[in-house]
Amino acid sequence: MTSEIDPNEELARYRASIDNFDAALIHILAERFRKTKQVGELKAKYDLPPSDPAREKAQVERLRQLAEKSELDPEFAETFMTFIVKEVIRHHKIIRG
Amino acid sequence: MTSEIDPNEELARYRASIDNFDAALIHILAERFRKTKQVGELKAKYDLPPSDPAREKAQVERLRQLAEKSELDPEFAETFMTFIVKEVIRHHKIIRG
Repeated sequence: MTSEIDPNEELARYRASIDNFDAALIHILAERFRKTKQVGELKAKYDLPPSDPAREKAQVERLRQLAEKSELDPEFAETFMTFIVKEVIRHHKIIRG
Repeated sequence: MTSEIDPNEELARYRASIDNFDAALIHILAERFRKTKQVGELKAKYDLPPSDPAREKAQVERLRQLAEKSELDPEFAETFMTFIVKEVIRHHKIIRG
């Protein structure tokens, strides 16, 4: 015998968690872009190559492994990273003028 | 007089931080999708409407505000959320069969 749950109450509880996760994501993203901005400035100042294919390959491989371990779809993790990196490259181009 | 930094050392330091932020992002995303999976199952079980425009509008507004406060581009925050929600909807359709 199971007691029936109130689906709307349950939904509100899930959404409260989702809102917390989203706030965490936004804040970590903000900090990540702060750091990639520093990378962009450093690369511009010392004329370092804007992209580093070996580094990028290693990053994707590592994130796919982390995703698998945490039961996130590795394909999605890779698409997500591509999405973020596209934005970073856009910022770096602005820094280089 | 400023002492010159080693740009490659500095770059490695920045990258170590970026790798930590990425691991955090992947783990929070994994947990967020775990939660939206529960939402999808709940909605399917109780035949709740799959989308909730008022909720989605409030979410975007809140995330734009959080982004602004943490100096993340609010436009990017919104695009990011659209990207995540698209994946959630894809999952929910699979749950509903």
